[in-house]
Amino acid sequence: MPTQAIFPVFDELIPRKEKERFLGQKARVIWMTGLSGSGKTTLAKALERKLIAAGFFSKLLDGDNVRSGINKGLSFSEEDREENIRRIAEVSRLFVEGGVICINSFVSPTKQIRSLVRSIIGSPDFVEVYINTPLEECERRDVKGLYKKARAGEIKEFTGISSPFEAPDYPHIEIKTEDRSIEECSDELFHKLTPLIRK
Amino acid sequence: MPTQAIFPVFDELIPRKEKERFLGQKARVIWMTGLSGSGKTTLAKALERKLIAAGFFSKLLDGDNVRSGINKGLSFSEEDREENIRRIAEVSRLFVEGGVICINSFVSPTKQIRSLVRSIIGSPDFVEVYINTPLEECERRDVKGLYKKARAGEIKEFTGISSPFEAPDYPHIEIKTEDRSIEECSDELFHKLTPLIRK
Repeated sequence: MPTQAIFPVFDELIPRKEKERFLGQKARVIWMTGLSGSGKTTLAKALERKLIAAGFFSKLLDGDNVRSGINKGLSFSEEDREENIRRIAEVSRLFVEGGVICINSFVSPTKQIRSLVRSIIGSPDFVEVYINTPLEECERRDVKGLYKKARAGEIKEFTGISSPFEAPDYPHIEIKTEDRSIEECSDELFHKLTPLIRK
Repeated sequence: MPTQAIFPVFDELIPRKEKERFLGQKARVIWMTGLSGSGKTTLAKALERKLIAAGFFSKLLDGDNVRSGINKGLSFSEEDREENIRRIAEVSRLFVEGGVICINSFVSPTKQIRSLVRSIIGSPDFVEVYINTPLEECERRDVKGLYKKARAGEIKEFTGISSPFEAPDYPHIEIKTEDRSIEECSDELFHKLTPLIRK
């Protein structure tokens, strides 16, 4: 394999546009933000089902598949929390550059952290989805029993209780979940999202 | 969105099998190992072109798209080199679990490091491809001028010169590149790989 045989065409990664054409979609990072218990992951999963049924190809990232993987060894210190989200954003970028829609479900409580995410992903590809569920409702649900522990002081810096959640001022999509079914909420999300990912 | 409305179906990620069915392929990590200048990345890029032309969907990871991304801040210390490869393996796993074929091009010089990769990815999904080009040939090509620098002592621990490259004993696929064209080598790779990824 002599060096001079390296044609320029081999020296390029397949461009994102070509991957998007292959899949028949526009790749975006769908960044779900909201309080613990707001319904982010539930809606992310329901969204992914609707997307694949409609012929869209996506990848869902949440705590479960990154905590013990790329983020292994990171603590809950402020610095490590930021590094945690930074790596997730970088991984999302790899998916998007490969033409894949990336659905991310992480509390990501501050404007500063979501601004970091946006700067890594790039503004045109970053779709901020605010899952708007009042704190009282999240605490009432308390699916994982975390609010109870936070109130008892067993969890420090728990978003909404002992550390702030800053709602986005202008999310691309906002879904209010109180008194609505998963079906209704995920339908709304799917329909608002479709124009952004359709070829 | 009352808690009791959370149906089990929403509580599951879309299984890998369903993603593979959607794409019409079996996902694997194609791990290209070989000396610097052996032709790993060139063949990885040529392979990806052939795959997409044949209807397979893949993602190529190499130094260029991970160094300043998920691996930002890592040094060249032994510990950080291992962390570097560990993160790449974890990212590959996310792609494979999402049904995507992941092509990786990294020197990964030791059996120990490739064994770490295999343990993260999981044996059945890990396809080791040895790009077998003699050191003399790699040094003769010296596309990036790195061998010259290594010989001059300007680069420390350069694989093949001042630190060892341990060839795999039983790679799944071995491609000898000397005196052969890129087309010939990538054809061979594509044909040997196809049975492993065809549905």
